[in-house]
Amino acid sequence: MTEEARAFVPGHITGFFSAHPDDSDPTKAGSRGAGLTLTDGVEVTVQQGNGPSLTLNGDAVEVEAVDRVLDALSAPAVVAAETELPLGSGFGVSGALALGTALAANRVYRRQLSENELVTIAHGADVQAGSGLGDVVAQARGGVPIRLEPGGPQDNHLDGIPARARVEYVSMGELSTEDVLSGDTTLLSEAGKRALSRVVEEPTLASFVHASRRFAREAELLTPAVTEVVQDVLAADGQASMAMLGETVFAFGTGLSDAGYEPSVCATHPAGAMLK
Amino acid sequence: MTEEARAFVPGHITGFFSAHPDDSDPTKAGSRGAGLTLTDGVEVTVQQGNGPSLTLNGDAVEVEAVDRVLDALSAPAVVAAETELPLGSGFGVSGALALGTALAANRVYRRQLSENELVTIAHGADVQAGSGLGDVVAQARGGVPIRLEPGGPQDNHLDGIPARARVEYVSMGELSTEDVLSGDTTLLSEAGKRALSRVVEEPTLASFVHASRRFAREAELLTPAVTEVVQDVLAADGQASMAMLGETVFAFGTGLSDAGYEPSVCATHPAGAMLK
Repeated sequence: MTEEARAFVPGHITGFFSAHPDDSDPTKAGSRGAGLTLTDGVEVTVQQGNGPSLTLNGDAVEVEAVDRVLDALSAPAVVAAETELPLGSGFGVSGALALGTALAANRVYRRQLSENELVTIAHGADVQAGSGLGDVVAQARGGVPIRLEPGGPQDNHLDGIPARARVEYVSMGELSTEDVLSGDTTLLSEAGKRALSRVVEEPTLASFVHASRRFAREAELLTPAVTEVVQDVLAADGQASMAMLGETVFAFGTGLSDAGYEPSVCATHPAGAMLK
Repeated sequence: MTEEARAFVPGHITGFFSAHPDDSDPTKAGSRGAGLTLTDGVEVTVQQGNGPSLTLNGDAVEVEAVDRVLDALSAPAVVAAETELPLGSGFGVSGALALGTALAANRVYRRQLSENELVTIAHGADVQAGSGLGDVVAQARGGVPIRLEPGGPQDNHLDGIPARARVEYVSMGELSTEDVLSGDTTLLSEAGKRALSRVVEEPTLASFVHASRRFAREAELLTPAVTEVVQDVLAADGQASMAMLGETVFAFGTGLSDAGYEPSVCATHPAGAMLK
């Protein structure tokens, strides 16, 4: 029996979204919206063991979505993950941990599930944990995903912007996805639907970043620190917006560097999550 | 305006399939089945120009699916493609040319179409040209695609086997996809449905190659040369089957090498078609 398996899952920045909860079936809940998958991501190693246990960059952590995946797979695994991405800052790390764990545990424990089944389990776990509504399905797809319908692979409908880009980002702090989503999401979801219409009409990176910036303003999610950085990038003729949900600014090309920041640098990821 | 763009499209070997023609709408026609996308593929460079024209490995060629894509995009492009894959041998080269042309021409001519729209155009073109029924949607997805429902992205439903593998192949000659598909496909499609049921039940590489081999036999597509090579691989404790549709044998791991052949060597491709 395979005793260890590894998976890589790209990070995911959502530019805008509308929330579509479903109290009766977490695999049908989710979000519409669009985002960027990133070459900066999470590497997940799963070993058969006396878990479940999880370490992230060497530290023992509790991530409810991972516990739920291991429970669904009846896999008492020892999971070790490494990432350069900041946590709680809008990069879909919880979704990446859930999806990477599902892919690798399926292999180690020979559960013989299909990719869609594994994505469904990870998506449902992230939704039930309150840590994400759309990261997992985007991370399974790769590229620059447009989420046209919410839910897991049986229900959703994905498209993509056919483009690649260098991406820069700076993170200034955490925002709780759970706090935002447990409040009134009416304003946010209305703004998200307008943004999606715009990007569907013109599926380009330029249209995406414009729609994202307008969404962040209309959804009243901009913090003073994010606003200042985005304005600096615009003043330097760059394009930037805010990652949903984190106090994080992303920019295309050299937008943040040109504005005098020292950003992390990566690129859009051409592929979805993969076993290594 | 961007004057040149490049795309890479993985090769695609179909292990088994059922044919689902639709005379009124080529974007709804297609096939169910499963296959392997390959790191050996086709690199397509599109330039604005006084075309349409196409070269493959430096030679001027006519590929109807590419003409149809360029016509749909109103793009009189100069297309230059390079590939190490043999033609007419079951690697989906026509589909790769169509899809790569669609992705790169959309960029060069700024047509602002989405990925699904470009895949739909390339899929419809390959179907109408009679050169493929499922390669394009598989090549757009990457990995080890299972095609659960026929058609383009608006209609089909894809899943995948969560695995990667080294792949070896030998090609001994061409088979005409058009000739097979224009004959009676009843026997073939019945065998294809049985194979799909088996792989859906157990989505593993072992199940895939077993189902593929049984399909090739039941569909009466095996040629004497293919039969001999497959049996040699089995005798050497390997796993192999035939590529649909070409006189080509593929094997996992070192199946063909172990049986004394000198195969081409590649691997499953973790990503779908991509702009470079």
